[in-house]
Amino acid sequence: MTKVTEAGQGAELKSMKDSVLAGDRRALAKAITMAESSRKEHRETTSHLLGELAGCNRQALRIGLSGTPGVGKSTFIEAFGMMLIEKGLKVAVLAVDPSSARSGGSILGDKTRMERLSRERNAFIRPSPAQSQLGGVARRTREAIDLCEAAGFDVVLIETVGVGQSETMVAEMCDLFLLLLAPAGGDELQGVKRGIMEMADILLVNKADGDLKRQAVRTCADYAGALRLLRKRPQDPQGFPKAMTVSAIERNGLDAAWDEMTALADWRRENGHFDARRAEQARFWFEAEVRDGLLARLRDPGPKQAMADLAAQVAAGTLSPGLAARQMLEDHLDR
Amino acid sequence: MTKVTEAGQGAELKSMKDSVLAGDRRALAKAITMAESSRKEHRETTSHLLGELAGCNRQALRIGLSGTPGVGKSTFIEAFGMMLIEKGLKVAVLAVDPSSARSGGSILGDKTRMERLSRERNAFIRPSPAQSQLGGVARRTREAIDLCEAAGFDVVLIETVGVGQSETMVAEMCDLFLLLLAPAGGDELQGVKRGIMEMADILLVNKADGDLKRQAVRTCADYAGALRLLRKRPQDPQGFPKAMTVSAIERNGLDAAWDEMTALADWRRENGHFDARRAEQARFWFEAEVRDGLLARLRDPGPKQAMADLAAQVAAGTLSPGLAARQMLEDHLDR
Repeated sequence: MTKVTEAGQGAELKSMKDSVLAGDRRALAKAITMAESSRKEHRETTSHLLGELAGCNRQALRIGLSGTPGVGKSTFIEAFGMMLIEKGLKVAVLAVDPSSARSGGSILGDKTRMERLSRERNAFIRPSPAQSQLGGVARRTREAIDLCEAAGFDVVLIETVGVGQSETMVAEMCDLFLLLLAPAGGDELQGVKRGIMEMADILLVNKADGDLKRQAVRTCADYAGALRLLRKRPQDPQGFPKAMTVSAIERNGLDAAWDEMTALADWRRENGHFDARRAEQARFWFEAEVRDGLLARLRDPGPKQAMADLAAQVAAGTLSPGLAARQMLEDHLDR
Repeated sequence: MTKVTEAGQGAELKSMKDSVLAGDRRALAKAITMAESSRKEHRETTSHLLGELAGCNRQALRIGLSGTPGVGKSTFIEAFGMMLIEKGLKVAVLAVDPSSARSGGSILGDKTRMERLSRERNAFIRPSPAQSQLGGVARRTREAIDLCEAAGFDVVLIETVGVGQSETMVAEMCDLFLLLLAPAGGDELQGVKRGIMEMADILLVNKADGDLKRQAVRTCADYAGALRLLRKRPQDPQGFPKAMTVSAIERNGLDAAWDEMTALADWRRENGHFDARRAEQARFWFEAEVRDGLLARLRDPGPKQAMADLAAQVAAGTLSPGLAARQMLEDHLDR
């Protein structure tokens, strides 16, 4: 009986693998849904599927894109994605928004935001997984990226909102990181956190059109000046990180931006930084997942109940936090 | 043999306990040094000592104090501490600076910063433990607070620098949280992070003396305005959080500030918030310590080596981060 089931699972896995490798978008969507599931058997099948697919040796350019609400991220992705499609490339768009589960709002909650792109045969758009834990979102997004790569996409765009820790997370799973900005007065420049600025490879000042064009050019120059003050990173050729203007609605500057992205990626490939970064990221996520997995044991029924009981004693003052912690670790979480 | 040693340890523990309870500063310093040690036997003795002392039911007012370098924290503590001593109170000062281990610099690295206070019989000043991990600093600081309470100090001041996560940590171990500020132009007001502002019970604008006096009064009014925009917290009576001016060098406003602190603490005691907060903090630290203890297992020799081996495979691309993490959790960290 078990053997039959295993054989059946094997056949299903094989068919899933083949469909994903063939670039079947429905199979890809199904595989990502499975990867997003927290059910044990889904997690195991996902692990096996990813293991099987790892041998295919396909590599997409993974591009992270961040920007606060209002800078025109959807319009940019629609225009930029269409341009890539017109170049004959296959484009996947994944969204990461750890806040969406709580706020109810969600980026990429529906595909109407990118109406044209979503109708393209060579495009694949996937909304943010409904998860509240950053660790969970991270693993699911990384697995979705792997699946998109295996499905033969040339470019995987990972979109995130410009708040909280999600940028750092996305930057840790991308080859290039873009920061989309709006034209602004000089004073507002400092609104961009230094940490995020330091993660970006290319700053794109959007809305360089109509009345805002001159302001966009000035803002771009301001940012370029600010970038020159940053310490040079070993993974950057001369001139990077850089600031550029684009207009998503007029589709200006998108080609130039893409040229810079490929130039940067090529330079990093030739100088060993591209693979080194991926290796470093893999190691980072391995360690993060071990930590998450270890801490997840606290949510198992037994330990969870013991934690609650001890916490009640601690709050009542009958047990010190330190002794309670020791008791918890020794009695309920021992190897 | 074991019995003799145990009896010896018991006697030593008893003598330590009695000396701390008698307010012996040398015994207190020794007990804190033991609490700061990471040696297993020291950790155990500390646990026992704290367990023994917990029954003494002494309670100090725990006051957290934060402020960026240059606002005059040392001068304030020296003046404020001396004022409390003159009122017949016993004052302990603990410093928390998780950065000191790395930067080499250290707040309260020597007692010369508070020359008069350090000579007082009823004062006890303790520099920051030389630790780089925030979790380690947290536990050691909490244990030092407990020891100071048991030694009969009426006020325990916990000083921290206004950077990073150390404020949040200190706020989680205090009854009251003070933020010391310097007079500033209106534009600089936004330099104080909203999160830190929301933790503070009283903002003290220091240097309200000489040429800076008018500016300090204006800054204080600006902060008072900003505080009114914050949501009212249930643990605050009317008028809190509040902003006040002080001059540490002229010793002005210190009495008034102390009156506000005691008024706030009394109100919270009468309204159940004081004990509720301590209970909540104890629960918080219990949970943090369980998490830290669980993650510490990754640093044990066996798991550490396994992590390094698997990380090398992950970086080389021969094993996926997810599979490696699963292998690590199942083979090397199993219960």
